[in-house]
Amino acid sequence: MIKTPAYAAATPTSPLAPFTIDRREPGAHDVLIDILYCGVCHSDIHQARDEWGGAIFPMVPGHEIIGVVAQTGSEVSRWKIGDTVGIGCFVDSCRQCEACEAGEEQYCRRGASFTYNSREQDGQTPTYGGYSTQITIDEAYVVGIPEGIPPERAAPLLCAGITTYSPLRRFGVRPGDKIAIVGLGGLGHMGVKLGKAFGAHVTVLSHSPGKRDDALKLGADDFIVTSEAEAFTRNAGRFSFILDTVSATHDYNAYLNLLGLDGTMVLVGLPDPTPLAAWPLVTGRRRLAGSMIGGIRETQEMLDFCGEHGVTADVEMIPIQNINEAYERTLKSDVRYRFVIDMASLRQLPGH
Amino acid sequence: MIKTPAYAAATPTSPLAPFTIDRREPGAHDVLIDILYCGVCHSDIHQARDEWGGAIFPMVPGHEIIGVVAQTGSEVSRWKIGDTVGIGCFVDSCRQCEACEAGEEQYCRRGASFTYNSREQDGQTPTYGGYSTQITIDEAYVVGIPEGIPPERAAPLLCAGITTYSPLRRFGVRPGDKIAIVGLGGLGHMGVKLGKAFGAHVTVLSHSPGKRDDALKLGADDFIVTSEAEAFTRNAGRFSFILDTVSATHDYNAYLNLLGLDGTMVLVGLPDPTPLAAWPLVTGRRRLAGSMIGGIRETQEMLDFCGEHGVTADVEMIPIQNINEAYERTLKSDVRYRFVIDMASLRQLPGH
Repeated sequence: MIKTPAYAAATPTSPLAPFTIDRREPGAHDVLIDILYCGVCHSDIHQARDEWGGAIFPMVPGHEIIGVVAQTGSEVSRWKIGDTVGIGCFVDSCRQCEACEAGEEQYCRRGASFTYNSREQDGQTPTYGGYSTQITIDEAYVVGIPEGIPPERAAPLLCAGITTYSPLRRFGVRPGDKIAIVGLGGLGHMGVKLGKAFGAHVTVLSHSPGKRDDALKLGADDFIVTSEAEAFTRNAGRFSFILDTVSATHDYNAYLNLLGLDGTMVLVGLPDPTPLAAWPLVTGRRRLAGSMIGGIRETQEMLDFCGEHGVTADVEMIPIQNINEAYERTLKSDVRYRFVIDMASLRQLPGH
Repeated sequence: MIKTPAYAAATPTSPLAPFTIDRREPGAHDVLIDILYCGVCHSDIHQARDEWGGAIFPMVPGHEIIGVVAQTGSEVSRWKIGDTVGIGCFVDSCRQCEACEAGEEQYCRRGASFTYNSREQDGQTPTYGGYSTQITIDEAYVVGIPEGIPPERAAPLLCAGITTYSPLRRFGVRPGDKIAIVGLGGLGHMGVKLGKAFGAHVTVLSHSPGKRDDALKLGADDFIVTSEAEAFTRNAGRFSFILDTVSATHDYNAYLNLLGLDGTMVLVGLPDPTPLAAWPLVTGRRRLAGSMIGGIRETQEMLDFCGEHGVTADVEMIPIQNINEAYERTLKSDVRYRFVIDMASLRQLPGH
């Protein structure tokens, strides 16, 4: 076992604090990765505080991992020492079900092994995430970071990027399409950049008038303040696609009415249940769908797309010692648009 | 004007009773149709009782109309006297918007003129439906009934048939697909027959165990009693497509979990708003959609498909004098599966 410095939550009410975990020695198909950066996802907070139930403690969060290959198992063929690579939201899956065979490992029927707050495929060993200095992982669950993307700005692509890229791609957004992005946080800001890279006409829907300038700076073509009277009636039927990144409860019906005939709204957040009317679906043949991250193949495709189109996340770098403050600021939406931990700060910790 | 015997509701609380309406003299593009049969749709009751609001009285319901062309305007080219034809849920639309140009007149942006409880495109003249002996209509809003379909059994195809055909076609149901039909009423029984004609493996989901035999007789391959414990857990992920014909409020989330990855559930009823969780959509990339009847072109396509595949509705014929009793029985689901009014009964009324 490899003793590895990390930051962990000991209980749902504990602040994150230094902790040491064991990483396995790389097997034949494994790579050992020195972690350089790890993004801070809102779901890290939900899980560290056990807000979704069933959390496994101690918990080392982090699933937007960028690192460099430090060691390769005897059978590893895809990666070599020194490669800059990424790890997203899962580190393994059953590899046998329809979803895995289709390269949609995130929907693995047996259950993917998520990067943290989960179990390895043995059903026993807890997984620990990227708030740590090293990680051992099967080479098949690693993606390559294209040259030209600054690695710290690539970290959020592993969750926020693929979460927004996948539905834009899967639901067929095309150049010239009029699309809307609901919410301008970590996910939403990637949605705007990717939507523009897809060639769409992108409108941001936000309840905060103060985000208008930011939205336009990020490349949005238009901005609608959803708290304004008539925002919904005035824009009825305007969009062919809406990417809804908001996790707080909101009225889907109002947003669905902004879609034209055959329009689709895709949820990527997980709001609490809220009343849905059949009317806006039936009277416009509209679709309300969901989407969850993306498979390994699609994550690589997204990274290559971002490399080609110069799409990266806007990040604020922090040392890991500031993680608890970063959580508080994330909860207040006081970040543009993603905190990324510089893991050098953990290597320099006294005692490690 | 053509004085035309009809049955109308005078107010939301009145029983239907004999009434005389004026039909316009056929214009250059109009046909005058002698109505032979008219199906009784559940929505006739909702509207006659003003349960959806904004109803226009007196109201002559009926939008599953079968008749014979009796007179043709000077410019009529599609139909000739003696043709057996049908009229569905709308009789006109703006003909200029995107939806109309795409042949999706039911979604007309300006608002289609529905067959009753609606206004002509002049925004003034009320429309009156098929519980009457004649109707004047633009030839472009008429469909032809293929030879070989008994006309009285074709009547319900104009609403129940197209309402279920369109989503099966649009959402890509293919031979061998495992699909489910929720509810076994007028719509559901057409869904089963059409699903089978599409080559799908069809399961009926119903809360009534007593409908099992009927479902299998109609051609269903399997039947699930949704009121049984474990019905939903045991069948999780089983279907690629669900056609939900139920208008009573029910838990969409439970049904969505019966879909596999990328599965779609389409609502064709209009239940009251009910809580929707993001979870089943997000974790299976599932879609919840709606669909409303079909355009003229697709309605003709459906009729031709039914002619080829020998698909017709199961009907119980009634004289129009029994319409109020038929409404009560419809509300109790005591009909297999659609009442159809024999309009000969209205022609023989004393006083007309």
